[in-house]
Amino acid sequence: ESNSNLIRATLFPGDGIGPEIADSVRQIFKTAEVPIEWEEHYVGKEIDPRTNSFLTWESLESVRRNKVGLKGPMATPIGKGHRSLNLTLRKELNLYANVRPCYSLPGYKTRYDDVNLITIRENTEGEYSGLEHQVVRGVVESLKIITRQASLRVAEYAFHYAKAHGRERVSAIHKANIMQKTDGLFLKCCREVAEKYPEIKYEEVVIDNCCMMLVKNPTLFDVLVMPNLYGDIISDLCAGLIGGLGLTPSCNIGEGGIALAEAVHGSAPDIAGKNLANPTALLLSAVTMLRHLELHDKADRIQGAVLNTIAEGKYRTGDLGGTSSTTDFTNAICDHL
Amino acid sequence: ESNSNLIRATLFPGDGIGPEIADSVRQIFKTAEVPIEWEEHYVGKEIDPRTNSFLTWESLESVRRNKVGLKGPMATPIGKGHRSLNLTLRKELNLYANVRPCYSLPGYKTRYDDVNLITIRENTEGEYSGLEHQVVRGVVESLKIITRQASLRVAEYAFHYAKAHGRERVSAIHKANIMQKTDGLFLKCCREVAEKYPEIKYEEVVIDNCCMMLVKNPTLFDVLVMPNLYGDIISDLCAGLIGGLGLTPSCNIGEGGIALAEAVHGSAPDIAGKNLANPTALLLSAVTMLRHLELHDKADRIQGAVLNTIAEGKYRTGDLGGTSSTTDFTNAICDHL
Ligand SMILES: CC(C)[C@H](C(=O)O)[C@@H](O)C(=O)O
Ligand SMILES: CC(C)[C@H](C(=O)O)[C@@H](O)C(=O)O
Repeated sequence: ESNSNLIRATLFPGDGIGPEIADSVRQIFKTAEVPIEWEEHYVGKEIDPRTNSFLTWESLESVRRNKVGLKGPMATPIGKGHRSLNLTLRKELNLYANVRPCYSLPGYKTRYDDVNLITIRENTEGEYSGLEHQVVRGVVESLKIITRQASLRVAEYAFHYAKAHGRERVSAIHKANIMQKTDGLFLKCCREVAEKYPEIKYEEVVIDNCCMMLVKNPTLFDVLVMPNLYGDIISDLCAGLIGGLGLTPSCNIGEGGIALAEAVHGSAPDIAGKNLANPTALLLSAVTMLRHLELHDKADRIQGAVLNTIAEGKYRTGDLGGTSSTTDFTNAICDHL
Repeated sequence: ESNSNLIRATLFPGDGIGPEIADSVRQIFKTAEVPIEWEEHYVGKEIDPRTNSFLTWESLESVRRNKVGLKGPMATPIGKGHRSLNLTLRKELNLYANVRPCYSLPGYKTRYDDVNLITIRENTEGEYSGLEHQVVRGVVESLKIITRQASLRVAEYAFHYAKAHGRERVSAIHKANIMQKTDGLFLKCCREVAEKYPEIKYEEVVIDNCCMMLVKNPTLFDVLVMPNLYGDIISDLCAGLIGGLGLTPSCNIGEGGIALAEAVHGSAPDIAGKNLANPTALLLSAVTMLRHLELHDKADRIQGAVLNTIAEGKYRTGDLGGTSSTTDFTNAICDHL
C-alpha cells in the first residue's frame, strides 16, 4: 500500500556490498524522516534463470516513472558480449550528464585541503560511441563522435547547475588544439551557452594542463564540464584528491528530468556480506538525489550527519583506517541526525 | 673547424626563454667538459622572410645526421594553417616514443615525496591522427588510429628502457573496457612484448583508475607505457606531482636511434630576455640525451649538480620561490659540478 504523501524513488542495491550500503541509506532516510518510499529492483550480474535477464523492463520503467533513483555498484554479467550495466543504463535512460561533486571531508586528511569542485561529464557520446573497426590487418580505429545537440545539452546543464548552486565559474576541458573539429564543436557549444549566463565566468582549459593544475592546486577550479572520456578521467582524478571513490557522490541526469544517483565505486566482492563496507559514497549520492528533489533541509541534515560522523573519527570503516562495521557507522550517523 | 673527438648534437634553442636556457646548458656542458659540439639551428615561430620558412630542411637534416639533439620551447607560428612545430618535428623525425622521467627533487617540497616514475608515450598516432570529419551538420567525428606496428614499437622501447635502467615493472595504461579494438590492440602488443621480458613485471591499469592511484600514491608506479593522448594527460599530471613542467625532462626517441630531448614547458614570452627563466627542465632533458649517448658519468655529474643546487636552496629562480637570475642559478650549478 503506497502512501500518497511520499515520493516514490527507485532503488537498485546492485551487487556485492550494494545491499548492505543500500540498507544503510534506508535506515538513515527513515531516521531523518525523508518522505521517500523506495521501489526496489534487482539489477546486477545475476541472471534470472527464468527470464534470462539481468536488467528487466520493469526496472527501467520504474526509473522512467519515478524520475528519481539510486543505484549501488553493479558488476558486469560474466560471459561474452555483455555490456557494462552502467553503460546500458546510461543509454536506455538517456543519462546525458554525470555530475560528481568532489569536496574535502572535514577531519579526513589527504594531501589536499579545501577541495570543492564539481565535474560535469557528457555521458552519451564521444569516445564511448562503440564504433570501432579494423581498417586493415594491424590497423584499427575508434570513432569519437561529438554532436552539437549533446554538447549544448550538457553545457546547458553545467551552467544551469552553476547558477542554481551559487557557483562562480565554469571551465570547459578539451583538447581542441589536437581535435579541432570534435573538441572544437564542444567548445563552440559551451561558448554559446556561456553567452546566456553573463553572471557565470567561463574559461577553457586544455586537459593535460587541467590535470597538472588539479594536482598542483585543485582550488583553482569550480565547475568543470567536458566530453565523456575526459570526464571519466578527471572525475576519478578528483576523487583521488579527497580520498577515493568510496567517498564521492555521483548523479546522472537524463532527459525528462530523470536523476539517477549512484555510488561509482566497485561492488567489492571480497568484503561483501561481512558488514565492513563504507556506505558514504551511496549516502552522499542519495543526498544529491534529495537536492535534485529540492529537499534541501533533509539533504543538509543527512550530509551534515555523515560529515560530522567522519570528522569526529570515532566510527570509521576500515577503508578510512577505522574498525567500525557498516551498522556501527550507520548508527553513529543516525545519532548525529 | 670541428673537432673529431667531439660528438655533434643539434641544438634548437627555440622561442621566448629558449635562448637563455640554452645558454645555460651550453655553459654547464662546457664547465663539465662534456665532449659535445653543438650545431645550432633556429626553429620557432619566426618566419624567415627570404625563404618563408620556420623549419628548414637543414634543421631536420641536422638531427637526422647527428642522431641526437636538444630542443627548447617553440611557439606555434601565427596565422592560419600552421601546425604545432612540436607535432611537425614528431612527424618528420618519426619520433615514436616520448620518455618523461618524473622524480621528486630533493629539498623542493611538494605534496608528494619519493616520486620516481617514467611515462613512455606513443607519439605518432592514436587520437593525434589528424583525421576528422563532419558527418552531417552538427555531428563531427575524430578517428583514433592504433596500429600493431606502432604499438609494438613503443612497447618494445618501454621494456627495453625498463631493463636497461634496472626498473622492475611496466604498467600499460588503457581504456580497453570501452575501446576494445583500439586499446585492445595496444594491450595485445604490450602483452606480446612482455612475454619476451620475463624479468620485468607487467600489469594493465585502466586510465581513470591510474589517475586516481597516481594522486593517491604515485609510488605505486614504475614505468608506464600508453597510447598518445593518455600519455599527454598522464605525463602532465605526473609533472604536477613534483612541481610542474619547469622541472621535468623529456626525450623523444625516433627511428634509426634518434634522440631529441626537449623541455616541454612553454616559451614564457612574459619573462623572455629578462634573465629570469629556470633552465632546469632543459638541463635535465640534456641529461637524458647524455644517458642516451651512454655518457653516464657526465650525466650523473650534471644531474647531481642541478639537484644539489636546488636542494641547497640558496639559488633558486622565481618559479621555485627564489630570487636568482638564470645566470646566478647557472653559475651555482657550475660551482656544484
Ligand atoms: C566501468 C566503466 C565502463 C565506467 C566508464 O568508463 O564510464 C566507469 O569508469 C565510470 O566512470 O562510471
Ligand atoms: C602542444 C601540444 C600539441 C602537445 C601535445 O598535445 O602533444 C603538448 O601538450 C605536449 O605534451 O607536448
